[in-house]
Amino acid sequence: MIQKPRGTEDLIDLKVREYFALEMIIRNIVDSFNYNEIKTPIFESLELFKRGVGEETDIVSKEMYTFLDRKNRELTLRPEGTAPTVRAILENKMYINENLPLKLFYFGSMFRYERPQAGRNRQFNQFGVEVFGPKTSEIDCEIICLSSTILNTIGIDEYTIHLNYLVNGEQRITYIKDLKEYLKPKTLCDDCKKRVESNPLRVLDCKIDSKQFVDVIDMKDYLSQEDKKYFNQLVENLKNIGINAKIDKMLVRGLDYYTGFVYEIKDKNGSTLLGGGRYDELVNQLGNVDLPAAGFGIGIERLLIALAEEEIFISTPISLDAYIIGLSEKAKQFSNILLLMLRKSGLKVDFDYMNRSMKSAFKQSEKLNSKNIIIIGDNELKENVVVIKNQITKEEKKVAFDKIVDAIMGE
Amino acid sequence: MIQKPRGTEDLIDLKVREYFALEMIIRNIVDSFNYNEIKTPIFESLELFKRGVGEETDIVSKEMYTFLDRKNRELTLRPEGTAPTVRAILENKMYINENLPLKLFYFGSMFRYERPQAGRNRQFNQFGVEVFGPKTSEIDCEIICLSSTILNTIGIDEYTIHLNYLVNGEQRITYIKDLKEYLKPKTLCDDCKKRVESNPLRVLDCKIDSKQFVDVIDMKDYLSQEDKKYFNQLVENLKNIGINAKIDKMLVRGLDYYTGFVYEIKDKNGSTLLGGGRYDELVNQLGNVDLPAAGFGIGIERLLIALAEEEIFISTPISLDAYIIGLSEKAKQFSNILLLMLRKSGLKVDFDYMNRSMKSAFKQSEKLNSKNIIIIGDNELKENVVVIKNQITKEEKKVAFDKIVDAIMGE
Repeated sequence: MIQKPRGTEDLIDLKVREYFALEMIIRNIVDSFNYNEIKTPIFESLELFKRGVGEETDIVSKEMYTFLDRKNRELTLRPEGTAPTVRAILENKMYINENLPLKLFYFGSMFRYERPQAGRNRQFNQFGVEVFGPKTSEIDCEIICLSSTILNTIGIDEYTIHLNYLVNGEQRITYIKDLKEYLKPKTLCDDCKKRVESNPLRVLDCKIDSKQFVDVIDMKDYLSQEDKKYFNQLVENLKNIGINAKIDKMLVRGLDYYTGFVYEIKDKNGSTLLGGGRYDELVNQLGNVDLPAAGFGIGIERLLIALAEEEIFISTPISLDAYIIGLSEKAKQFSNILLLMLRKSGLKVDFDYMNRSMKSAFKQSEKLNSKNIIIIGDNELKENVVVIKNQITKEEKKVAFDKIVDAIMGE
Repeated sequence: MIQKPRGTEDLIDLKVREYFALEMIIRNIVDSFNYNEIKTPIFESLELFKRGVGEETDIVSKEMYTFLDRKNRELTLRPEGTAPTVRAILENKMYINENLPLKLFYFGSMFRYERPQAGRNRQFNQFGVEVFGPKTSEIDCEIICLSSTILNTIGIDEYTIHLNYLVNGEQRITYIKDLKEYLKPKTLCDDCKKRVESNPLRVLDCKIDSKQFVDVIDMKDYLSQEDKKYFNQLVENLKNIGINAKIDKMLVRGLDYYTGFVYEIKDKNGSTLLGGGRYDELVNQLGNVDLPAAGFGIGIERLLIALAEEEIFISTPISLDAYIIGLSEKAKQFSNILLLMLRKSGLKVDFDYMNRSMKSAFKQSEKLNSKNIIIIGDNELKENVVVIKNQITKEEKKVAFDKIVDAIMGE
């Protein structure tokens, strides 16, 4: 039998209902924050991710699905949502002044060829937010606030916000130099031995080595006066709305494009739930437009696992307003009329299409959690009535055709 | 500058709002019909579509995006939703008796390498419905009714339902023989010259040739007694709910797996809006499970074009409950508190993050269609008040911090 590709998943039953419920909760929140949706294609040219995410990153160097189309164009299934969003705002010239700030959000499937593990499939779904235009501690605060509001709303209350501010410009050069000095005497994993030269910041992020860096030099000490002031203001803004972020000098994030604040929200076990930060150079790099930007991304599957761990269910349980059972050929044919009438009134109704015995049809209606059972046989058809059994009160009554909607709605 | 791949589209602004509004309307309808969502992966093994859609079809032979992963597995971006759904119900063993009928729906991106044209991109979005289990004229009627209900609900009223019933078994062999005889003397296009042998039914579907087949032999005359009875019953069920389908002997649909009723809904210009039918052999073919099935699919972009042509807008216009303007540094920093307070109350609120002049901030609030403007300066901060300008009544008043939510909600 043909199976789904490795690292992919079918979402069915409870899982897909939880997924949709989560999407709707998030959509409600981002709407109240006045963010607008953007949908970019599933694949982009390979070049976009090479330039937008960085050829040095694990994502681009090891994890992408790249293929040729029939005209030999190199296309890549998107591994993340930020570079495509930047490409889209440039191509559609969405960045004109009167549109700023551009406050955008996206939901979409992303693709990374990794070893599949719990919460990390090769196809996964991401929700993300990107703001283009302002570079202020207020908008940074809004972004962090939006992400924590999502967690609070779905009932995940125990988390820590880790915050750092990446050093920029000349100061960055000095910091990197000192960091390399600091790292020199350490025993590092094979990946990090290379990273020390190509991308030393990433060493701090290494799952294997990072434990030995407790005494690492602190970026904060290298920040320019201006950056320091900005960072302090952000911390204060966060405090003002009740968010006590933990300043974490080890936090650098896995992507190369960050240039200002970076943050991650970790659950009570220290595992990352979401993260983001400021990337003021990316738009310029991809399209020669000077446009500060910041954002965050959440893995939807990661959140669903967090919810499941807490035994929180956010979807509405299955239920029906009425389940119709037809006792004869004629009655079954009449079902289509009845179904349409009830559904047009906004009721959720179904019919025993499987021709079940009375007993198993009743069982079916219980399985579907139907509030009412509507029974029609030839006698009822003759009298222009149906029998309605209220499954909650166990009451049973004959109801004329034109009173059925009222009878079901009245319950 | 890097551009989106040919045949793909960025959905932004009004387009993405219309898209989402359409999805929500459809979701509401399928919920009242008691259909459950299924989400399958974006790519599947090539084999699935070869076997499930048919190697002879244009889709499989010419239009698929197929690529190798790092372990040389042949993967294909899904060109349609039915074969993946069948694969998923087989793999997840969803077809056990007590789950029947399985009434499923999906929303998702599909991919076909075609010449891009209006409403036909290489990546497009499809909504589809599949029902597994029953083989009755009542469920077929429900499926057609569901699709027409969607059109009626969004305001597309002028359409024709074309209906046909594909001949099966021995009768099919006789029909095909007679059809080939009928086609022999005709002058056909190059594609159809081949199709006459490989897949003669598809000739009837040809955009170039079909005009000359007005007098083609009628499938209906070849149906078995049983099929004829079934088809007549379906036509009667449809009539009972007010649907007068046009029996169309030329209608065969582009896919190979159909075995019973097939239908298309065409707009007033004769262009197809959606289509579907019964495919009782596909599950068996893919997984040796005997399970009748039927369904339909709609191209979301196709529907959006139909709506645009009728100048029907289904999304909610942009609006805000309040737009906040801060007149000083301190006031700006206070905005985060105010924003969170208002948003927590379910209000949709935004802030002038761009540090605009008073005049252009007011213009911005008009652009965002804000019902209120909240102004805070240092004086207001000292007095613990804000100034609220109601943009509808043009009234202006000072409101204490703890009364702001009430003041905005009261409007």
